[in-house]
Amino acid sequence: MPKEKKPYPCPEFGAYLRELRKEAGYTQESFADAADFDRTYVSGVERGERNVSLVNICRFADALRIHPSKLFEFYKSENQ
Amino acid sequence: MPKEKKPYPCPEFGAYLRELRKEAGYTQESFADAADFDRTYVSGVERGERNVSLVNICRFADALRIHPSKLFEFYKSENQ
Repeated sequence: MPKEKKPYPCPEFGAYLRELRKEAGYTQESFADAADFDRTYVSGVERGERNVSLVNICRFADALRIHPSKLFEFYKSENQ
Repeated sequence: MPKEKKPYPCPEFGAYLRELRKEAGYTQESFADAADFDRTYVSGVERGERNVSLVNICRFADALRIHPSKLFEFYKSENQ
């Protein structure tokens, strides 16, 4: 039974994280190892089923060797 | 009894959020109203006592009328 998606922007964040992970050449497994997460957590985040915390956002960015602000390039707010 | 601080980068994020809030001319009260948060939540985040979620990071950014990536300009990772 698939888990319920979290509100915007969790699904969009997850999809963008997946894109960046693949560009960096990681599998979910190797990415989870690099960021010291459980693989099921990474797949949950990528599917938009997790409302990721600040600390974990920065751990993802560090594992991708990018600045955490880059993880928000997908974001469209009504003010833009 | 002050609450325990969360790990890096929560205190730094909180301090930077406070800076941006003041620059935008908000009090904690008016900022909490604008972002539809409780004032005590905002003060806890600014004191580094909260590990803010992705959804709330974006609500803070929207209330400040900035892109959420701007909330991470304080961030120094060991890869920089």
